[in-house]
Amino acid sequence: MSQDKKGLAWIIPIGNELLIGRIVDTNSAWLARRLTFLGYKVIRIVKVPDDLDEIVEEVRRGLSRAEVILTTGGLGPTYDDKTLEAVAKALERKLVLNEEALKMVESFYKKKNLPMTKERIKMAMLPEGSKPIPNEVGAAPGALIEVEGSILASLPGVPAEMKTMFEKHLQPLLEERAPPRKLWECSIQIKGVPESSLAPFLEEMARKYPKSYIKSHPKGHEIKEPILDVRILSASESLDEAKKLSEKIMNSIEAEAKRLGGEIVSKSCKAPD
Amino acid sequence: MSQDKKGLAWIIPIGNELLIGRIVDTNSAWLARRLTFLGYKVIRIVKVPDDLDEIVEEVRRGLSRAEVILTTGGLGPTYDDKTLEAVAKALERKLVLNEEALKMVESFYKKKNLPMTKERIKMAMLPEGSKPIPNEVGAAPGALIEVEGSILASLPGVPAEMKTMFEKHLQPLLEERAPPRKLWECSIQIKGVPESSLAPFLEEMARKYPKSYIKSHPKGHEIKEPILDVRILSASESLDEAKKLSEKIMNSIEAEAKRLGGEIVSKSCKAPD
Repeated sequence: MSQDKKGLAWIIPIGNELLIGRIVDTNSAWLARRLTFLGYKVIRIVKVPDDLDEIVEEVRRGLSRAEVILTTGGLGPTYDDKTLEAVAKALERKLVLNEEALKMVESFYKKKNLPMTKERIKMAMLPEGSKPIPNEVGAAPGALIEVEGSILASLPGVPAEMKTMFEKHLQPLLEERAPPRKLWECSIQIKGVPESSLAPFLEEMARKYPKSYIKSHPKGHEIKEPILDVRILSASESLDEAKKLSEKIMNSIEAEAKRLGGEIVSKSCKAPD
Repeated sequence: MSQDKKGLAWIIPIGNELLIGRIVDTNSAWLARRLTFLGYKVIRIVKVPDDLDEIVEEVRRGLSRAEVILTTGGLGPTYDDKTLEAVAKALERKLVLNEEALKMVESFYKKKNLPMTKERIKMAMLPEGSKPIPNEVGAAPGALIEVEGSILASLPGVPAEMKTMFEKHLQPLLEERAPPRKLWECSIQIKGVPESSLAPFLEEMARKYPKSYIKSHPKGHEIKEPILDVRILSASESLDEAKKLSEKIMNSIEAEAKRLGGEIVSKSCKAPD
């Protein structure tokens, strides 16, 4: 693996329903949060329609840039579920019947007394060399492929299936490989200081502490009663250092906010959960 | 404009908060739905962090592939709001103080009796040749640039600001340029037929009617009581043809579902809203 992929993650939600706006994609925020807490840096979330060549293009981009590539959606039995065919094509591998996956699908339908059909068998067709990921909630197995030092995992689009699969089968693997990175998040709520008045100081802090991510979220009404929620997320190999960093920055912001005539509404710190 | 960009749209939500999963991005589904109903085909939604080079890369990709490119977020006063700097770089233009935008920002802060600062002036720095889009809700104007037959518009990330700006100032322009395309959506709910049993027929329909988008969403529990919600969205230059198409396909699916022993729970058609 090229060293510049290390620790980077790329998420590819697949499905026309996302691109016509019928569905708000909550999967990728959930995955992004999990990956972040594991120590990965998510650098792209790319939603792509159920189109073979478009998926191939995005999977290849992901593989060239990130260590962990997750796709969601497109594993089902219907004609427009093209994810694994596209992954195979992106890797120039064949799509083959995976015996282990076939057993998973068979066992799922056997419980319902339903026969196997061409469409159900399709769910056991995985790119050559991939490992099926059990789906404890639905029918379609996921697929895991390690290639050029990257991990590419295709997860279902149904949130309950995706989450269970990730937590049970993918998270342990990703934890093991994750870069040693601990996070500590502080937040401070300030009343009476407009965002743009505090901005120069936040900019200065951000430049001074590159391991921290500082972001202000205006909450109240800017004109009448500005309330600013400032979050400070620090990442470090040591939890102690992450704590020290976030708390030091929070305290500096507090002092500056008071200097500007602001009032501190609340302050808190925790490991992001 | 190259003909293959015509009618295609590309959305680029910008912001670290999206990639660490702190925020579920509802903006892009809202925009995707609006663009779809206007007749555009959204082919990508690419979330990118507040990193100059990453944004430049994605803006350039969008410009090379789509007629309409919308960015959201990154217009504010803080150091990590880099959208317009990146757009300027992507177009190899200068970022210049736009007098019209400056008036908008000044008038916003004047109402609050707040002075102009370096950070507030930053919000009036637009790529050369762009037109500021008024922000009726917040401080930062948007920016509209027409380049090589594409329209590139940068909208705020705060949903209320983004929606008002889109509806008041962008939608009329996009309507005018939109490909003549009318949509009609039918949906049919079927009880007692598993998704994978209906799949071969849906596949056949999809192949037979390429102007329609057919998607089944399993709702009930697959094992005990499968309920399938099948949606048929047809697009055509004529509303009449879109209606005929969607209704014809819905009726065929109804017949097939009954043949498979299913029961029709409900059926309805409408212009998507």
